[in-house]
Amino acid sequence: MKTLENKLIEWRRDFHRYPELGFLEMRTATIVAETLEKLGFELQIGREVMSAEHCMGKPSDEETQAHLNWAEENGAVEKYLEQVSEGYTGIVATWDTGKPGPTVAYRVDMDALPIYESSSGDHVPLNQDFRSTNTEMHACGHDAHTSIGLGLATLISENSDRLKGRIKLIFQPAEEGARGAISMVRAGVVDDVDHFIATHIGLSVPHNHFVASNNGFLATSKMDVSFKGVSSHAGGKPEEGRNAMLAAANAVINLSAIPRNSQGMTRVNVGELHAGSGRNVIADRAALKVETRGETSELNDYMKNYAESVISGAAQMHQVEYAIEIVGEGISAKGSPELAVRLHDCAEKSGLISQVESNEAAGSEDATFFMDAVQKQGGFATYCILGTDLAAGHHNEKFDVNEDSLLPGVQTLFESAVELSRR
Amino acid sequence: MKTLENKLIEWRRDFHRYPELGFLEMRTATIVAETLEKLGFELQIGREVMSAEHCMGKPSDEETQAHLNWAEENGAVEKYLEQVSEGYTGIVATWDTGKPGPTVAYRVDMDALPIYESSSGDHVPLNQDFRSTNTEMHACGHDAHTSIGLGLATLISENSDRLKGRIKLIFQPAEEGARGAISMVRAGVVDDVDHFIATHIGLSVPHNHFVASNNGFLATSKMDVSFKGVSSHAGGKPEEGRNAMLAAANAVINLSAIPRNSQGMTRVNVGELHAGSGRNVIADRAALKVETRGETSELNDYMKNYAESVISGAAQMHQVEYAIEIVGEGISAKGSPELAVRLHDCAEKSGLISQVESNEAAGSEDATFFMDAVQKQGGFATYCILGTDLAAGHHNEKFDVNEDSLLPGVQTLFESAVELSRR
Amino acid sequence: MKTLENKLIEWRRDFHRYPELGFLEMRTATIVAETLEKLGFELQIGREVMSAEHCMGKPSDEETQAHLNWAEENGAVEKYLEQVSEGYTGIVATWDTGKPGPTVAYRVDMDALPIYESSSGDHVPLNQDFRSTNTEMHACGHDAHTSIGLGLATLISENSDRLKGRIKLIFQPAEEGARGAISMVRAGVVDDVDHFIATHIGLSVPHNHFVASNNGFLATSKMDVSFKGVSSHAGGKPEEGRNAMLAAANAVINLSAIPRNSQGMTRVNVGELHAGSGRNVIADRAALKVETRGETSELNDYMKNYAESVISGAAQMHQVEYAIEIVGEGISAKGSPELAVRLHDCAEKSGLISQVESNEAAGSEDATFFMDAVQKQGGFATYCILGTDLAAGHHNEKFDVNEDSLLPGVQTLFESAVELSRR
Amino acid sequence: MKTLENKLIEWRRDFHRYPELGFLEMRTATIVAETLEKLGFELQIGREVMSAEHCMGKPSDEETQAHLNWAEENGAVEKYLEQVSEGYTGIVATWDTGKPGPTVAYRVDMDALPIYESSSGDHVPLNQDFRSTNTEMHACGHDAHTSIGLGLATLISENSDRLKGRIKLIFQPAEEGARGAISMVRAGVVDDVDHFIATHIGLSVPHNHFVASNNGFLATSKMDVSFKGVSSHAGGKPEEGRNAMLAAANAVINLSAIPRNSQGMTRVNVGELHAGSGRNVIADRAALKVETRGETSELNDYMKNYAESVISGAAQMHQVEYAIEIVGEGISAKGSPELAVRLHDCAEKSGLISQVESNEAAGSEDATFFMDAVQKQGGFATYCILGTDLAAGHHNEKFDVNEDSLLPGVQTLFESAVELSRR
Repeated sequence: MKTLENKLIEWRRDFHRYPELGFLEMRTATIVAETLEKLGFELQIGREVMSAEHCMGKPSDEETQAHLNWAEENGAVEKYLEQVSEGYTGIVATWDTGKPGPTVAYRVDMDALPIYESSSGDHVPLNQDFRSTNTEMHACGHDAHTSIGLGLATLISENSDRLKGRIKLIFQPAEEGARGAISMVRAGVVDDVDHFIATHIGLSVPHNHFVASNNGFLATSKMDVSFKGVSSHAGGKPEEGRNAMLAAANAVINLSAIPRNSQGMTRVNVGELHAGSGRNVIADRAALKVETRGETSELNDYMKNYAESVISGAAQMHQVEYAIEIVGEGISAKGSPELAVRLHDCAEKSGLISQVESNEAAGSEDATFFMDAVQKQGGFATYCILGTDLAAGHHNEKFDVNEDSLLPGVQTLFESAVELSRR
Repeated sequence: MKTLENKLIEWRRDFHRYPELGFLEMRTATIVAETLEKLGFELQIGREVMSAEHCMGKPSDEETQAHLNWAEENGAVEKYLEQVSEGYTGIVATWDTGKPGPTVAYRVDMDALPIYESSSGDHVPLNQDFRSTNTEMHACGHDAHTSIGLGLATLISENSDRLKGRIKLIFQPAEEGARGAISMVRAGVVDDVDHFIATHIGLSVPHNHFVASNNGFLATSKMDVSFKGVSSHAGGKPEEGRNAMLAAANAVINLSAIPRNSQGMTRVNVGELHAGSGRNVIADRAALKVETRGETSELNDYMKNYAESVISGAAQMHQVEYAIEIVGEGISAKGSPELAVRLHDCAEKSGLISQVESNEAAGSEDATFFMDAVQKQGGFATYCILGTDLAAGHHNEKFDVNEDSLLPGVQTLFESAVELSRR
Repeated sequence: MKTLENKLIEWRRDFHRYPELGFLEMRTATIVAETLEKLGFELQIGREVMSAEHCMGKPSDEETQAHLNWAEENGAVEKYLEQVSEGYTGIVATWDTGKPGPTVAYRVDMDALPIYESSSGDHVPLNQDFRSTNTEMHACGHDAHTSIGLGLATLISENSDRLKGRIKLIFQPAEEGARGAISMVRAGVVDDVDHFIATHIGLSVPHNHFVASNNGFLATSKMDVSFKGVSSHAGGKPEEGRNAMLAAANAVINLSAIPRNSQGMTRVNVGELHAGSGRNVIADRAALKVETRGETSELNDYMKNYAESVISGAAQMHQVEYAIEIVGEGISAKGSPELAVRLHDCAEKSGLISQVESNEAAGSEDATFFMDAVQKQGGFATYCILGTDLAAGHHNEKFDVNEDSLLPGVQTLFESAVELSRR
Repeated sequence: MKTLENKLIEWRRDFHRYPELGFLEMRTATIVAETLEKLGFELQIGREVMSAEHCMGKPSDEETQAHLNWAEENGAVEKYLEQVSEGYTGIVATWDTGKPGPTVAYRVDMDALPIYESSSGDHVPLNQDFRSTNTEMHACGHDAHTSIGLGLATLISENSDRLKGRIKLIFQPAEEGARGAISMVRAGVVDDVDHFIATHIGLSVPHNHFVASNNGFLATSKMDVSFKGVSSHAGGKPEEGRNAMLAAANAVINLSAIPRNSQGMTRVNVGELHAGSGRNVIADRAALKVETRGETSELNDYMKNYAESVISGAAQMHQVEYAIEIVGEGISAKGSPELAVRLHDCAEKSGLISQVESNEAAGSEDATFFMDAVQKQGGFATYCILGTDLAAGHHNEKFDVNEDSLLPGVQTLFESAVELSRR
């Protein structure tokens, strides 16, 4: 096991040094593909496992091409690069034991964040020489997730005799922004799945602890909103303009003013606003990045629908045009209690201090789309948390995990594969 | 002339003691009617000289009936009361010399304001015992205007041999709020008029001074705006409400934010806002009193059209209904230079220091509707200012005029009647 | 018991016909006083049981005097009127059994709401001829509460031999707006109380049902906010004004935009907004009625503190002055489980279907001040709900209770007095 | 003259191809310096003629260094580059005739705009191969101004015998944003000037026409406003954030809502707003580019002071910090009538159709600082307009001048040098 532990750390640090944003995980995905193929998994890559029309918030062709060049220069595996070159970076790796049994799937996410990693003297990735080499950062632990996925694959490959049925490892792009899962669901990758397990490291659960079913995810919608007016000289002809910034400013304030809802928790945020192109010009463009959340999908719908009224009304007030593009969505979901209890037992068997269920409100997650699909077809699904000690919170520039947490996570997941393959 | 001067003061003080709001000038109008009939004028009263469908912002039937009772108890002349009992209080009094000549019209307004008159020790109306007996006040000098109108009628009646053609005295209701003139224009009262003169006292012009043509009036629109939402318990079910107050608040701010216009002066004001019925209830009603102004009618249209966008957008943002009622309108107008020069000469002849023209921006005036109508049919029109020394500004609770200014005003107007009747 | 039931209905309908707003319950209080004194209770009235400096949102002296006249003309009992004439209308009625034992207190509220009662044909108070005789209405059941209080007093008086210790009946003014309780707490009326029970009828609990401990009350602050600017002529000199309405409108929108709080439920509402005095005048005054709520007192403090920032900032933006007056406050509170269980047993014994506890979020209640005080001194407190079938929701113009619910309520409370007097 | 005309076009096209933003005119200034020195002018460059502490809105050291590299690679004259390498790019070139006489100064501005030049097929600079080689553009004609300045220098050099006294050519950086003039005024460059003439091409005056005194410039203030709050996870802990975007949005709307001013024309614009760094993060930063204008300096002060109240109040509402940096200022100014008449005569003599004065509101100009300084010391100053036919309006990506207008402009200015050197 010492060997596997070293391997896990090595993988994680490699991914950490080369973070890639959602729908751009080209280097990561090709390394994953090569590793899994060598272990004997059967691969499906890119458009085979992703519905192109359901990819939300995908980077432009220019950005994708530029990143492809970067990936080529930074260690992507040439053999698989063609298949992910357009940004469809999802992979499904299947292990068929040949024996009758259920199909068990594990979801792993691979993308990083547009955060500039700390270069503070006490930041371990700096000290240990695996700090990000570019301007992105694995500040949410998806590097650890990918590493754990490869570790799980290793144990499966080496201990196939303990298993029955089929194991599917789903490497998903673009979890950040809740953008990637739906395209894999629509491509049918969980249509044959009986048990589905998604995993996240951290989330305030300490090292050596485990939560078998985390149920606090909020439904969410991510919207890119644009206002288009008419520019004019602000000093000379102000009346000839149509002020997109005024519409946007009204939208921001009134989105925040959407009434609280007595049925449960709601959220709304405008995280970015960019408007105008010159001090003395009436702003003809404004762009907002908006997200709504709700404790249930119904509550999120309430927020989203109200938001659309606010945006259209703000445009109408100042006679500008608007467009709303949905660039990410997550639904709320509850883990299947039967599956949670079995996973809980596996964690305890692997030496972790486990609790069956947690209902702490967390952020949003598009793994809920997989869960919902599996449960609707009669299967079982859960979202588990692998505890670790964090150097700083998620999405912080000093985020770092305790690498000692990786191995017990791999072991727990492998034990669940054994346990679940029984029936 | 001493007798006429005393008479002018007596009339003015009597009207000052019994102020009446627009479309409620029942006591005033019946006294005017009685006085003019006695002098030999031919009268048209109420619906004969007012188009009912063009009366904007008329009080409710209940208010009208209540005021009728008040008027009966406070000295209205019974004989004419029936004709003005529904609030159509306009009068046109015609003096036909029987000799061929032009038709010359003078406009007099009669209404007061909802201002509670000062009871300060230095306020002349209090000292001289003619302070308002009710909660309204003649704080814009229309009491003086009505008095001057009766004084002019007296001189006409006594000096008919100096005149030719016909003289029409138009006593208009509801100048405040720019509401009354249009209904008289639409009833055709100036269709036969060759020369039209409207008069205002004060307006920063000092005693013994005169302006023959004041051209600074702004075009204006007065709007009553209402928002209608849905109430609900603010603590229990906030999401079931539709918040009319939020819509109204957004309208107020964004009306103020209508862009400045490079073509000339514009104004906008929300003077009153009332919303909601209980602290813990989502407000389902909000009402605004709005006015726009513009240096030209085109500029006022710009403001008014933008205002409608703001109001509809604000309603849309918070999913409430809205209604806009136009309750007053004034257009911009320029005096006829030929007429101004002739009137200027009359003023100088009457001992006043006169200037032909002033372009100082003043408030708005619906006399502009009469002016526009007369000019469009080829006639001449002007709006003159009779200077006086004011105790405090217009619409102030301590407003008061110098009564010495009344007689020269009457003389100037009478001289103009003589001058204009020549051709 | 038939006699008592008739009496309960008679009392309730009498109070219903003569509703009185908070701190004006003069007729109600004097009738309560007379009834209780006849039953043998010892009375403390008005300033004896209320701290004048802690009365929030008390009507003006003029309103109080005017209502005193109304009360005299509408059946107030002369003997006690002097003591409540200034609007201190609280009463504490004590029954001392002379036997050692605990002190048990019951809170009853007496005030009505500024709602105009329905005159719809199907409204029972109209049909049965006990509709409100004025423009206020008992639309929250406090008429029933007062009646139940008198019924409880009757049973205590008639069955004193079953009791030990002392019973205190607390008739509180001004529960609406959460204004009256604190003044009685500060006057020390529960300083000697071991068990405290407050009761409310309705609240979505059906007839024949009972909740022994309702824990869903929100902490709340009620604020009257005023903005004071400078008026000026909106057309002539807009730059000389300081626009209080603009400040108020910004406050309204940004109060609604106070961020949601992850620690629990929050609320904010501006229920009323009145600004300005004339269409063409820059508004120099604006007044808001604001309330904040929070699932805990900490959460309400978060809302209240943020609200103060918003209000001061809105004033600063448009250079106007502001003032915030706290006119009502409620804290959050949890019932004592031991007391709840004992009360639950009494309800079941009285034939009601009872549940020990409910955590449904309700509105706010200032009975929580009594509860907090009693619990802090080591006593027990609870807030129970007496179910009934409502014709329409609380604060609705068609609100009405099922009078069959009154007697079992009285019986349950009396049984609790017997039960609690044991120790 | 044909030679000079060709030279003017050649210069203008060269500057057009290499546009440089304000305080970065390194290539332009060094070419100007070389040309003027060769003609025999005495030069003062950079810090000699600019007060460093009065340079508003100067680019950062990084930007300045980066541009220096660009300038070196794109034809800057090495000899003078050191002197302008820190972005102090102003030049004063003096021609001393040695004969007694007045000092006459001409102001020329050199900077370009951050506009991406049109590549439309009908755009002359594209067709004639002098379109901008970078992402900036001479979209306001300062390329033509610089060319005219060099043309004027040529005529002075060649016809010195017609002149007396001294001629100063002031090549000013950073006119856009009204940033550069004040630093040259404070360095004393017009302290000895008797006659000052600034020139602008275009401004709606057609080819072959001339305005000797343009008096419509507005006083202006340019402000960079920043808000600084606290970021937090918008889903997880919204209450821990301090939302800078909300403050900024309120500022934008309420800046637009500053009341109109009856004393004259006012303007306000927020031209750019950038806030936030991620969709699910409470925005901790917001930056605004604001400008106010007024028909007089007093009116601009009214706008600027009100703007500061709005900005501080918006920050206070949402408990964020703010900073306001003044990055540009212009005052209002009136040309000296005596000078205007003399310049008018020179224009007519040069074959142009001239008018003495125009009061059309134009944008703002910091040449007004030179004018004010010269007039205050008893000298004469004017701002003239050289008409041309424009392909599109100023600051438009398709802006272009008629090059036939250059020569008559040079001739008029030279004639004025002759005329003014007489006394």
